[in-house]
Amino acid sequence: MANVAIVGSGFIGRAWAISFARAGHDVRMWDQSPTATGGARDYIAGVLGDLAANDLLRGQQAGEVLDRISVVAELEEALAGAVHIQENTPENLEVKRKVFSLIDTLADPQTVIASSTSALLPSKFTDHLQGRQRCLVVHPINPPYLIPAAEIVPAPWTSAETVERTRAFLVDAGHAPLDMQHELDGFIMNRLQGALLEEAFRLVADGYASVEDVDIGIRDGLALRWSFMGPFETIDLNAPGGVRDYVERYQGIYSNIFPQTQRRVDWAGKVIDTVEADRRKRLPQQSLGDRQVWRDRRLMALAAHKRKSDQEFGE
Amino acid sequence: MANVAIVGSGFIGRAWAISFARAGHDVRMWDQSPTATGGARDYIAGVLGDLAANDLLRGQQAGEVLDRISVVAELEEALAGAVHIQENTPENLEVKRKVFSLIDTLADPQTVIASSTSALLPSKFTDHLQGRQRCLVVHPINPPYLIPAAEIVPAPWTSAETVERTRAFLVDAGHAPLDMQHELDGFIMNRLQGALLEEAFRLVADGYASVEDVDIGIRDGLALRWSFMGPFETIDLNAPGGVRDYVERYQGIYSNIFPQTQRRVDWAGKVIDTVEADRRKRLPQQSLGDRQVWRDRRLMALAAHKRKSDQEFGE
Repeated sequence: MANVAIVGSGFIGRAWAISFARAGHDVRMWDQSPTATGGARDYIAGVLGDLAANDLLRGQQAGEVLDRISVVAELEEALAGAVHIQENTPENLEVKRKVFSLIDTLADPQTVIASSTSALLPSKFTDHLQGRQRCLVVHPINPPYLIPAAEIVPAPWTSAETVERTRAFLVDAGHAPLDMQHELDGFIMNRLQGALLEEAFRLVADGYASVEDVDIGIRDGLALRWSFMGPFETIDLNAPGGVRDYVERYQGIYSNIFPQTQRRVDWAGKVIDTVEADRRKRLPQQSLGDRQVWRDRRLMALAAHKRKSDQEFGE
Repeated sequence: MANVAIVGSGFIGRAWAISFARAGHDVRMWDQSPTATGGARDYIAGVLGDLAANDLLRGQQAGEVLDRISVVAELEEALAGAVHIQENTPENLEVKRKVFSLIDTLADPQTVIASSTSALLPSKFTDHLQGRQRCLVVHPINPPYLIPAAEIVPAPWTSAETVERTRAFLVDAGHAPLDMQHELDGFIMNRLQGALLEEAFRLVADGYASVEDVDIGIRDGLALRWSFMGPFETIDLNAPGGVRDYVERYQGIYSNIFPQTQRRVDWAGKVIDTVEADRRKRLPQQSLGDRQVWRDRRLMALAAHKRKSDQEFGE
């Protein structure tokens, strides 16, 4: 197994540390703020206990995995000998540019440098680097130790070898990489989520549906099939002759709707009062934290179910 | 329990029959083509066996439920004494208008008449009826005995009492109704699905993502949380202060993307060659049927998992 460096020890950095250590790597975490790393190992120990209870540690004990994670005082120490560096600093372009300059100077020339950014294109903060061909984005959905999908986003100058090594590294750690061919605002997942949310906010703003109707339509409807097939396989199986047959039969429904979706509702306008009132009626503000714990428990149970179903019925 | 009539014995009619009979109702199916109903009970018996094996029959034996389903030769016989009529004829406006005229003439004045249509607005085929106030759409996602969501879509003249009785009837049968306030093309679920598919086809057509990347991003990414929370609750839990905080922090990402989504890609154009080639590489045409069986098994296992998780962790 290899050395992996985590730069930035917030929730995303900690989550990546868990995923990479579970895969057998020695993980060294560094943060510019020593206070930030203070509670990191305790937090990680708690999560590892939950994962062990759900048999989501590849048969390992929580302690074994925890032993592979260390917090180090110097950035150089974290980077030394690493095959992969995962950067998790704030979503601020100037910060990213400085951090990437520093890492590119200090890291071995063969090391891949990946950013967890969800909002910034890799070309915007790696253009000035000598080692820019080994830089890219690896964007997770939180928490990556429970949600396998991770987006690989190259800058125009990222080498094919860097992409290939990153892909293999992620697959080995149990991730399901999405390989973007070129960088694009929002990458793939936030663009898909955004398209769905735009329609959801429009339906609520226009009075056709309640917030809860939208959530029911997804959680008790569309997302059941999507959660093990995805949207293309879903439509491929929804017409006798497959996806081409589906498009021939049903595209008319969607192309009729399309012109009605060309108007954006400001999510922060009047509609947010409706959305917030509905959500706070179902979940008081002070219960948000408890509900996040509930979400992660349900995600763990779902991850365990999916693994079992993959084994029983095939992927 | 009550009498329920199913008009049209294709896959959707049969699926509703299973759902309503499982809830304890006596279900009478009728089809204008006697050959269409021929295999219906055998087909239903097979599904009921699978549901029993997954403990999805409310503790009943498959035979008990099957005994509540009968195929009748005359429409009058199906409708007599029914509290709810579910219509499942072809998606053709003239057919629907004629069938609804006939049913409205024959059915008791108190009976609710619901159409399973996914594509036609209820005002288009009930405007001419004397009993139009008791007509509406109840649109399922197939198969409704595994997917709880069902859209209730009123015409402008549908009475509030009709909507309320339909809602109670569906909830009692284990469904999760979405209450549309007014009819609208595509209802709620197909509009949400369409918004996501439009972006998916654009990403593939423009060469940013493969078909499989999109499916991974949903099935191994976004749809995991969506499958038990829905998209609004997901974003409500994705910022420390809840949904308003999320909108304040992240709307900028989505509003930047919005202008790039104002161009529709013809799904039946060049992109369908790419989509079909990718799908057929992963799943040959002759395996579509087997994969549909796989999908339904996975849906059953997921339904059983969700019920268990609802009990263990709360909904």
